[in-house]
Amino acid sequence: MGLRFEIVAEDTTTGARAGLLHTPHGVVETPVFMPVGTAGTVKGMTQAQLEELGVQILLANTYHLYLRPGHEIIRELGGLHRFMGWPRAILTDSGGFQVMSLKSLGRVTEDGVWFKSHLDGSSHFLSPERAVEVQLALGADIIMTLDECVEYPSSHEAIHRAVKLTGRWAGRAKEKLSAISSQRSASEEPPSPQSPAPSPQQSAIGNRQSSIPAPALFGIVQGGVDRDLRRESAEGLLELDFEGYALGGLSVGEPKAEMYEVAEYTARLLPRNRPRYLMGVGTPEDLVECVARGIDMFDCVMPTRNARNGCVFTSQGKVIIKNTKYARDESPLDPACECPVCRRYSRSYIRHLLVAGEMLGAILTTQHNLHFYIDRMRKIRQSLLFGAFAEFHSRVRAEP
Amino acid sequence: MGLRFEIVAEDTTTGARAGLLHTPHGVVETPVFMPVGTAGTVKGMTQAQLEELGVQILLANTYHLYLRPGHEIIRELGGLHRFMGWPRAILTDSGGFQVMSLKSLGRVTEDGVWFKSHLDGSSHFLSPERAVEVQLALGADIIMTLDECVEYPSSHEAIHRAVKLTGRWAGRAKEKLSAISSQRSASEEPPSPQSPAPSPQQSAIGNRQSSIPAPALFGIVQGGVDRDLRRESAEGLLELDFEGYALGGLSVGEPKAEMYEVAEYTARLLPRNRPRYLMGVGTPEDLVECVARGIDMFDCVMPTRNARNGCVFTSQGKVIIKNTKYARDESPLDPACECPVCRRYSRSYIRHLLVAGEMLGAILTTQHNLHFYIDRMRKIRQSLLFGAFAEFHSRVRAEP
Repeated sequence: MGLRFEIVAEDTTTGARAGLLHTPHGVVETPVFMPVGTAGTVKGMTQAQLEELGVQILLANTYHLYLRPGHEIIRELGGLHRFMGWPRAILTDSGGFQVMSLKSLGRVTEDGVWFKSHLDGSSHFLSPERAVEVQLALGADIIMTLDECVEYPSSHEAIHRAVKLTGRWAGRAKEKLSAISSQRSASEEPPSPQSPAPSPQQSAIGNRQSSIPAPALFGIVQGGVDRDLRRESAEGLLELDFEGYALGGLSVGEPKAEMYEVAEYTARLLPRNRPRYLMGVGTPEDLVECVARGIDMFDCVMPTRNARNGCVFTSQGKVIIKNTKYARDESPLDPACECPVCRRYSRSYIRHLLVAGEMLGAILTTQHNLHFYIDRMRKIRQSLLFGAFAEFHSRVRAEP
Repeated sequence: MGLRFEIVAEDTTTGARAGLLHTPHGVVETPVFMPVGTAGTVKGMTQAQLEELGVQILLANTYHLYLRPGHEIIRELGGLHRFMGWPRAILTDSGGFQVMSLKSLGRVTEDGVWFKSHLDGSSHFLSPERAVEVQLALGADIIMTLDECVEYPSSHEAIHRAVKLTGRWAGRAKEKLSAISSQRSASEEPPSPQSPAPSPQQSAIGNRQSSIPAPALFGIVQGGVDRDLRRESAEGLLELDFEGYALGGLSVGEPKAEMYEVAEYTARLLPRNRPRYLMGVGTPEDLVECVARGIDMFDCVMPTRNARNGCVFTSQGKVIIKNTKYARDESPLDPACECPVCRRYSRSYIRHLLVAGEMLGAILTTQHNLHFYIDRMRKIRQSLLFGAFAEFHSRVRAEP
């Protein structure tokens, strides 16, 4: 097991807990929000800025990196951490969500998914085994099984079929990872005196590869908003025993209350001592609500994408900063915020930058929004450590 | 005089000198390269990154800020330093160069220039007096007189006419600044007991305005590549006695050797104890060559614009980083460079970012190129302080 998960505090009245996720690239304090670094970069942020924000783990999209620059190039260059210059933890998704949600969707078969590149229209095939191989080439600390995520709403039959297929694919992914891991251990035996010395280049690549421990593999629970199907999906995965469990197929259009309920129901089906990751969620409110329901990990493009569109999160609610009323507003984005952006720049300046299409506008709003999300998670965690989560929870609920 | 210029070292065989320019926003070590912050931002850089790079002064374009967000808004918000969150020195141009070089050129009259906004086509008028007023609203430390810059090549008659007009405009700019400065000093007399108390808002704006000292005004020598016209232009300006002198109308298409010769000839016409600013120049080689010819200050979009196009400056010459041959290149942009970009990121990664159109690509190449320029100026200055400029000069000449 590459991933030790330690629970350090639990709320007495809700499912909320604080933990430590020990990865080969550092300890991640949970609950945690993972910024999305689609193409190996969190849009507009330098890695130094991410470190300053306190980011301990980020998410990268296998689909995008597989197509460009290509996972083989990243493998040759020593993996994604080295490629990006990012020494902390990385989680990669399986690529399945992009393949199925981008309009280019080809065909889902028992074996895997055919899809077309959004870049050049070329045809590609992604199977559960292939998704593992590609993610191993990228070298993330946590990788995901390929799953089928159906749209909302879907028929009971379609969701059930996806649950079954996701379960079979999860098994195949796990087998593939075990097979590769045992091959790797075998090949790491000291070479016999007869074997030729590796060339310096091979040696360098070999050393890099073998220095990357096998990643932790997470299974993904599907089942839409149907409790029975969620249970069936979870039970199938639990038999396979994953190092962590994700909740997929939520926040895809279902009512918010339904999402919270299904998240809570599903989290309770999962083992206490494994991390639980709610994929693609969500708003600042969602973070608190879903921590209360037992979730440890989140990712979402919302803070970064909204930032580029000029929508910033503040203690007073969302601010659409391009609005004319901010043209002469000397106050910071959020008067209650202590991020590097709010300590230095005014709303009027940031509005000017966005209106003028200047890169710095998107840079500053992104930095602020990520700080808002990470700071929120930090406060949630602190409240758990001090036994004050209920108080924090009700304070957030009372916010605008 | 708001601007004390102190010469701290002079080369014995060339016109090169090292100095200290004491501005209300800090000391600027010369020779200096000023990054261009067109719309109140050096594209892609945060102000903190500029500080880390060691930028002591930057240039902002009056034309762009006048049109958007508007100089009156910036005045109300306490001036450009405050608006941008930039505590170090700023130089603004007069706006004339953009007005005359953008295709929108209206009409040059004795009184000033009519032009159309590139944003919405609206008509505007810029006179020497107006250029001073707008720059005072922006609140820069160093401001420029409105000049007429003719294209290369132009007839002797056209250049001569521009020299004469530039001279008359310089006189009008100087008068305008003196008139405003004496008005300001008068209005800063303690209020009489009869005068009504200012409203809190007026008071705040008033305090900010009066806390900004009158800027230093630089005159601009024109005259194309004609020595006699350069002399005539310089002599006219010297009679008016400016706090610094700029060389305009160079690097506009004339042969490089001609540019160097005219820069040298013109610099020799100017007083030793005033800073000399060569506008819009240039390449890394130009910086050394023109320091050798007596120039103290430079600005150019080259490091920042080239960066966004994927062209980076290195100790080995220019590198077009999008080139396929860098796809698997693990070395930094410049192996001899110690900037934050070269310490952390590879050519392969930066190439990937630029090919994928990711903001971080432009951010990193900009940071590196600015470091290259600023580092070069630092080395030039060090060589002057240690009496080793000739050696440095010949080493740079031998570079690829």
